[in-house]
Amino acid sequence: MCDFPAVVELNVGGVHYATSLDTLKSEDGSLLQELFRGTTLDVPRDSQGRFFIDRDGSLFRFVLDYLREPSKFKMPTEFRERELLRKEAEYFRLNGLVEAATKAPGCIIIGYRGSFQFGRDGLADVKFRKITRLLVHGRVAICREVFGDTLNESRDPDHGGPDRYTARFFLKHVFIEQAFDMLQENGFRCIGSCGSGTAGSVTENLKPGVDSEENRWNHYNEFVFVRD
Amino acid sequence: MCDFPAVVELNVGGVHYATSLDTLKSEDGSLLQELFRGTTLDVPRDSQGRFFIDRDGSLFRFVLDYLREPSKFKMPTEFRERELLRKEAEYFRLNGLVEAATKAPGCIIIGYRGSFQFGRDGLADVKFRKITRLLVHGRVAICREVFGDTLNESRDPDHGGPDRYTARFFLKHVFIEQAFDMLQENGFRCIGSCGSGTAGSVTENLKPGVDSEENRWNHYNEFVFVRD
Amino acid sequence: MCDFPAVVELNVGGVHYATSLDTLKSEDGSLLQELFRGTTLDVPRDSQGRFFIDRDGSLFRFVLDYLREPSKFKMPTEFRERELLRKEAEYFRLNGLVEAATKAPGCIIIGYRGSFQFGRDGLADVKFRKITRLLVHGRVAICREVFGDTLNESRDPDHGGPDRYTARFFLKHVFIEQAFDMLQENGFRCIGSCGSGTAGSVTENLKPGVDSEENRWNHYNEFVFVRD
Amino acid sequence: MCDFPAVVELNVGGVHYATSLDTLKSEDGSLLQELFRGTTLDVPRDSQGRFFIDRDGSLFRFVLDYLREPSKFKMPTEFRERELLRKEAEYFRLNGLVEAATKAPGCIIIGYRGSFQFGRDGLADVKFRKITRLLVHGRVAICREVFGDTLNESRDPDHGGPDRYTARFFLKHVFIEQAFDMLQENGFRCIGSCGSGTAGSVTENLKPGVDSEENRWNHYNEFVFVRD
Amino acid sequence: MCDFPAVVELNVGGVHYATSLDTLKSEDGSLLQELFRGTTLDVPRDSQGRFFIDRDGSLFRFVLDYLREPSKFKMPTEFRERELLRKEAEYFRLNGLVEAATKAPGCIIIGYRGSFQFGRDGLADVKFRKITRLLVHGRVAICREVFGDTLNESRDPDHGGPDRYTARFFLKHVFIEQAFDMLQENGFRCIGSCGSGTAGSVTENLKPGVDSEENRWNHYNEFVFVRD
Repeated sequence: MCDFPAVVELNVGGVHYATSLDTLKSEDGSLLQELFRGTTLDVPRDSQGRFFIDRDGSLFRFVLDYLREPSKFKMPTEFRERELLRKEAEYFRLNGLVEAATKAPGCIIIGYRGSFQFGRDGLADVKFRKITRLLVHGRVAICREVFGDTLNESRDPDHGGPDRYTARFFLKHVFIEQAFDMLQENGFRCIGSCGSGTAGSVTENLKPGVDSEENRWNHYNEFVFVRD
Repeated sequence: MCDFPAVVELNVGGVHYATSLDTLKSEDGSLLQELFRGTTLDVPRDSQGRFFIDRDGSLFRFVLDYLREPSKFKMPTEFRERELLRKEAEYFRLNGLVEAATKAPGCIIIGYRGSFQFGRDGLADVKFRKITRLLVHGRVAICREVFGDTLNESRDPDHGGPDRYTARFFLKHVFIEQAFDMLQENGFRCIGSCGSGTAGSVTENLKPGVDSEENRWNHYNEFVFVRD
Repeated sequence: MCDFPAVVELNVGGVHYATSLDTLKSEDGSLLQELFRGTTLDVPRDSQGRFFIDRDGSLFRFVLDYLREPSKFKMPTEFRERELLRKEAEYFRLNGLVEAATKAPGCIIIGYRGSFQFGRDGLADVKFRKITRLLVHGRVAICREVFGDTLNESRDPDHGGPDRYTARFFLKHVFIEQAFDMLQENGFRCIGSCGSGTAGSVTENLKPGVDSEENRWNHYNEFVFVRD
Repeated sequence: MCDFPAVVELNVGGVHYATSLDTLKSEDGSLLQELFRGTTLDVPRDSQGRFFIDRDGSLFRFVLDYLREPSKFKMPTEFRERELLRKEAEYFRLNGLVEAATKAPGCIIIGYRGSFQFGRDGLADVKFRKITRLLVHGRVAICREVFGDTLNESRDPDHGGPDRYTARFFLKHVFIEQAFDMLQENGFRCIGSCGSGTAGSVTENLKPGVDSEENRWNHYNEFVFVRD
Repeated sequence: MCDFPAVVELNVGGVHYATSLDTLKSEDGSLLQELFRGTTLDVPRDSQGRFFIDRDGSLFRFVLDYLREPSKFKMPTEFRERELLRKEAEYFRLNGLVEAATKAPGCIIIGYRGSFQFGRDGLADVKFRKITRLLVHGRVAICREVFGDTLNESRDPDHGGPDRYTARFFLKHVFIEQAFDMLQENGFRCIGSCGSGTAGSVTENLKPGVDSEENRWNHYNEFVFVRD
């Protein structure tokens, strides 16, 4: 009647869970620690004797996952219930979980003007892609969060807060795949992509180092990423 | 036999839930308040003594989520059963939940004609995107709901109701990402995207301020968003 | 031993459901009415006394949803198990549910040739999209089902049945978003989209009312929709 | 202690199922027939007396679905666990289910060069799409499986087995939608689509029957389909 | 009180499983072997006598799947919880499962410059695609993992580790579908695709073997694949 058992059986909104008492009490300042460091008289029970918590039964799975190994917590890829989970985390006063479930939503567009390398060596038949700049567009704070040190902000003098949108960032490298890897690691997914060629080849007055074939193949590809 | 227990165990269409009596009775005018403010004799039970409700067992999870914190209610991202949930909400007479589950479906297309800035400064190798207008197409009421104050309706004189479709709206800014953020916040997702370049560069009679390179890179990109 | 209880507990393939006897018997001619209007001796039971039905346990959720409110029945958006549900509906002889779960699968492609309006008024900087025709391609019966009165069939004389494919339908209006709304309402989703520009601007012999800018921006965008 | 009950309750890896004994024994040569035609002493039980099977609990749903109506068996659309199900089917020696769950994965690309019909009749403003060939690319065996009689192999002389890849198939008709319907029926879904226009209109020496407008609108659209 | 039963019932974080003792103990060095080769006194129980494990209840399904047939283990297609599963595998010290759940995430872009074969034979109306190179872009180690022997690295001398990104790989064949099959087999999915044509046809000084039609139809298509 006083002490909680080592294995605590819970009824969370109708879904049954089981966990160790140590796990439940592990996070300082949390509601669960507060509830389960007292006596069993303080926690209501269901008709089978399980300790009852009046919260979403489905998401409590992730609350327990978090409590077992806070530093290793992961949500599923493209998790559809992140915002619902944050609400639970706030209720249970689990700061680390609140933080993990609080990714600012947002949109980043990556665009590049590209072509191919022609005639640079004797192997005329092997032509690789040629990209001058990877352009980054979106809210300043999110672009910085995703690209960190690889972001070149030199052309976007800081007039305005990080909540403003910019179209004047680019990356310090030209590897699209590296940019996409960083977006993926930060929870973004691609929702759209557009390509377009250019009009009217320039056959005269070409800049030095650009031949007419390279000019013909100019294209602009743009990829839209969002985080839910 | 008369008073409901503090922890109420429910059998909703075969799925078991548990919640506090206070939660169940919290919304004035709701069917659940009506049912559970009386005596236990008024509510049928299953063979285990759980109070029985003859409704969809799976969606009742969200009914409880709503009742616990009505003002914080959230559905999962891209929720596939929103229309089914609305039906439950109507049955239980939960006005706030009906409203939350009633987003008008619809399609909005964002298009823009773009190019790149060339030769505006000494740094000829850094060229950012250049967009003149973000065009917005769709039903008038939905466009207004999503874009609010950022919508420019000046070219769409109000001849006809908000249910008509228009192709004459544009935004007051040119940040695609801001437009996409607002669409995302309103439950829209991108289902398609198309890009196209232009034909035949104009090399003569260019307008002042437009050089031939900018002209060559003209393109039209269009993004289709829907809400389920 | 004879009469069914008011709250009937079911074991459908291992999944437990509960519903009212009235709901179970509500549809005339159905197998469930036949089973449950007799005596309890006619229905096998599991070891806990639940009435046993040897069918898919997961999909029976929708069978009950249907029986509670047949006229309001809805499936989830982009429901992956529609064909499986139809099989259940047929087994239980629920005609309305069979019908709801029987959408003919199929593909519809919407294409349009577009450009922008230039120079039509004094506000030269505001240019809206210009579309001449929304083309509709697919099986005749499905195109008619989706677009109804908004479909122009005048160029597709009826030589052949509704099962043939046609590329000669177009819509009576030019609002892409309205077409996409109708596709969405009929359970179609977009699976692909392509855009392309045109080659070689025509600078001479332009038709009256078409200036060279409009000609440069000509593009063809095409959207593929399917229903599962 | 000897005979199985008519309603058999199962514990499959922790998930509870119920089915009729007839269903369990229905497929000749299957492991379930072998297990359940003996006496109850041959099958282990869990602590509640349910017959125990040490296999995946979640997928057994489809094993039962199959046994109830083998000839009508369907998997969910875009089923993510097809390969896992095949493993179960092999374990239970259910040949029909193995076959249903064994679709060879693979990629098929459909491409077409298209334009529009111009000037063929007096109604100059109605222009429909014009496609010469629907090209089919992929592994020979899969292309044949999907397109059957509608596949034209005349340009791909059979030098090599059906496992080789080919880019020399095309269809006997030009209805994209029919091709996509057949891909859908065979479990393929579209994962990408690309469009591109052509360069430099040809204004002289046009072939008979091709006017310069048709030439300007030439485009190549390509759609990638895969089966999981 | 000492020996485990042949059928072991488990409560894993609240979810009930059942498996054979042999399965549980099958992997040498695993935590489960360690736990279940002792006596029942070493494993905590829940109130129903089930052996209790304080881990994620949902993912334990795959732990059992793995233990039953380690060499045949498969995850669902596009599995959203792979990283969560790896955490469980590490906890249970199941090396094979750790490995199966440890696919390095990453992005690979496949691009090709293509056109069509014209005028090569008497059948002028049949024109197939023509691709010179399938370009492969991404991190070196991942490209090698996916494409193995079919990868041509001759133009990418190994200056730097396998973690660097490269844009100088191409394939030894030109079958896009074969490349996509290999990506699919390795758990990649397509997230975006872009197409673009070329500018300004070259009508003079064409290289031998390239006619002007082939030149007009030049296009660059690019497909982005990621692995979660």
